[in-house]
Amino acid sequence: MDLELVTIGDELLLGFTIDTNAAHLAREFAAIGVRISRRSTVGDNPEIIAAAVREALHRTGAVITTGGLGPTADDRTKPVIGALFGRSMVLDDAILVALEQRWLKRFGVALPVSNRQQAMIPSNCTVLNNHHGSAPGIWLEDDQGRWVAMLPGVPREMRGMLADTLLPRVRDRMQARGATESTVVRSRTLRTANIAESALADRLGPLATGVNGLSLAFLPGNDGVDLRVTISDVPAREAERQLSEAARQIQEKVGSFIYGSENDDMAAIVLALCGERGATVAVAESCSGGLLGSRFTSVPGSSTIFMGGVISYHNASKVRELGVSPETLAQFGAVSEQTSREMASGVRQRFGTTVGLSITGIAGPGGGTPEKPVGTVWVATDIDGEVQAVKAAMPGDRNEMRYRSTQLVLDRLRRAFHALPASAGWTADD
Amino acid sequence: MDLELVTIGDELLLGFTIDTNAAHLAREFAAIGVRISRRSTVGDNPEIIAAAVREALHRTGAVITTGGLGPTADDRTKPVIGALFGRSMVLDDAILVALEQRWLKRFGVALPVSNRQQAMIPSNCTVLNNHHGSAPGIWLEDDQGRWVAMLPGVPREMRGMLADTLLPRVRDRMQARGATESTVVRSRTLRTANIAESALADRLGPLATGVNGLSLAFLPGNDGVDLRVTISDVPAREAERQLSEAARQIQEKVGSFIYGSENDDMAAIVLALCGERGATVAVAESCSGGLLGSRFTSVPGSSTIFMGGVISYHNASKVRELGVSPETLAQFGAVSEQTSREMASGVRQRFGTTVGLSITGIAGPGGGTPEKPVGTVWVATDIDGEVQAVKAAMPGDRNEMRYRSTQLVLDRLRRAFHALPASAGWTADD
Repeated sequence: MDLELVTIGDELLLGFTIDTNAAHLAREFAAIGVRISRRSTVGDNPEIIAAAVREALHRTGAVITTGGLGPTADDRTKPVIGALFGRSMVLDDAILVALEQRWLKRFGVALPVSNRQQAMIPSNCTVLNNHHGSAPGIWLEDDQGRWVAMLPGVPREMRGMLADTLLPRVRDRMQARGATESTVVRSRTLRTANIAESALADRLGPLATGVNGLSLAFLPGNDGVDLRVTISDVPAREAERQLSEAARQIQEKVGSFIYGSENDDMAAIVLALCGERGATVAVAESCSGGLLGSRFTSVPGSSTIFMGGVISYHNASKVRELGVSPETLAQFGAVSEQTSREMASGVRQRFGTTVGLSITGIAGPGGGTPEKPVGTVWVATDIDGEVQAVKAAMPGDRNEMRYRSTQLVLDRLRRAFHALPASAGWTADD
Repeated sequence: MDLELVTIGDELLLGFTIDTNAAHLAREFAAIGVRISRRSTVGDNPEIIAAAVREALHRTGAVITTGGLGPTADDRTKPVIGALFGRSMVLDDAILVALEQRWLKRFGVALPVSNRQQAMIPSNCTVLNNHHGSAPGIWLEDDQGRWVAMLPGVPREMRGMLADTLLPRVRDRMQARGATESTVVRSRTLRTANIAESALADRLGPLATGVNGLSLAFLPGNDGVDLRVTISDVPAREAERQLSEAARQIQEKVGSFIYGSENDDMAAIVLALCGERGATVAVAESCSGGLLGSRFTSVPGSSTIFMGGVISYHNASKVRELGVSPETLAQFGAVSEQTSREMASGVRQRFGTTVGLSITGIAGPGGGTPEKPVGTVWVATDIDGEVQAVKAAMPGDRNEMRYRSTQLVLDRLRRAFHALPASAGWTADD
């Protein structure tokens, strides 16, 4: 089964906002065998919204829109698409009551007049409940079974409504009508860290241009280089078999540089490894300024493993809070092997954890010297008193350098737990 | 002048890649007075590519495509669009020689056969040189002056070719034909924090639906709600005057909820305010886990103002590192006004700074209780010993809640420095 997507909003068309909803919808529908065959983006212009939805309905008969359901005057999706189906707008009492209750409970005030239009819906439609926000979604269908589902544009609300309501509905509908799965494209992603694209290509050899006829893409980013193998025009089970075989062959060549697959996050992987070993972690951060702690604590359930840490941005706090010796700072500087080691050990002892991690570097744009240019970073791990440090020259701007530093120290801990060779510092092709 | 954009590639349609080219093109063309009126995204399917380009040509007469110019077999843009214009494909000797030289120089090998197709172009076209990669762009035009410009999909190559070749060409063409620059879209964004979309609408009253005839968009996000006023069909200077006047009227109604404009970052604004006052800052973070420190340190030059802080994720570290009293924790809990106040004061005294900021909350998904549900957060500011705390019920998932908590405490400090009324806790429409 195919469907089309129409994303609505001046902010998308003008380039103020990047359309992340479209990618999310494509991935979620692919997983249930529905292909998004085409996508249109239009501004908040009623005539153009109507034209785009009309054309998509005519071509494909199944359309999802995002955006234009909120309480403000630039939100025009519902009446415009309602009119395409010949429906007038009516006030829905149940939605109004729910909105009023929500406001009273949440803000202690009556529903503002401007929000009442959220309770207006096209006559004879199906309301898609929104458990993640106030704007309900709408499903409209004509007597030939052609339909439009309108979702909110706020990504969190859109994603929630998609999972709760729309995906199950479309799946049921496919089953009821015996609709066939589209020739969906499936993929497998292997995530590598701390190895350059060109070094990966060398390791892969002939596989770099494709694995058993499947295309292989190199996708570099701040986490490292992702390797994605893709297959289409093959039934689901056979596709999965071929993807698994391709992944096995890649794994054989790339080995320990692969830390995960699909959307795996290095911080979550390291926390899980700590959990298996009953280890606890604390962090001492200079140039990363809290980013490593933030990555750990963005993982639900991290509180039994991650104990906290010190952001020792100023040198005085390295001495006072972490016990780095003033002599070390004077002799070797804040960005040095010695300081990184004392930071890792200091925070481990202070917080009484199994592991201490440290990051100290020159994030730029200022502060570089010929000996220690911008991008120079030292990271260290102290695991039960055994301290290892490594230096890296990070490419990228200030925030890329900071993020890559967290990825490096996490990878060092991952390797130590797996008794793998320690990774070298991050290197990139450019 | 209007044009349409057709972005081509399975990876875009499947959601593997987020389409950043579209936003870049929209902004660059807006700056020379060209509006992108509609955007379509299609996969690597020749029939659908042809249909999308044909329809866009029919509607608007000016089309830019991105993608599908590379050497791989899924790149079909040139022959498909050539056929729309009735052109056959011919080998271009100059491109072939350039490709051969590039390969020899760059890789030390002869041009692979698979790359020869990059030298095939539609007959009677204009080649747009690519100084940033190997695939040249193509300009095709019919005898009625309708045109398609084909750009590569790799963002770096697309951006280079756009700036070097296509933008000047379109600008010259507009001048030669007397096309009006009237459709230029300009905008002004005012950033608000800690106020709900609907409360903004109520404050704005009639302005919510437009300011002096200019459209006003409400753009909610984790930073708060951005208000963007947009103008088109007006010459540059007059547009700027009208935007300034609209911004003034909005400012009058929304007042201190506006913390900045365009891409201003609250952390950078607060750092600047500290700098003006010679103030220094330290942070005590529980549920935010380093995110506040990370925001401060992502701002270049923050090291003279931001001294560091403590990530007191575990309760023991709140006592040990920040001096929170065990009795406070036992009596009121870690997420309480009292604890937030002692955290802010503790870190300020410890780091010897002017300001101490603290965040403690329940980020979820676990850990909520009926009295303190997930999303409950206390933030506190200690400025020279004067401590203020506020509670908020944050909407959103774990990471949205954490980010919004940092935005709230930063906004509290901003307001304190400006002697503005303290903001209440974050509220959203949902």
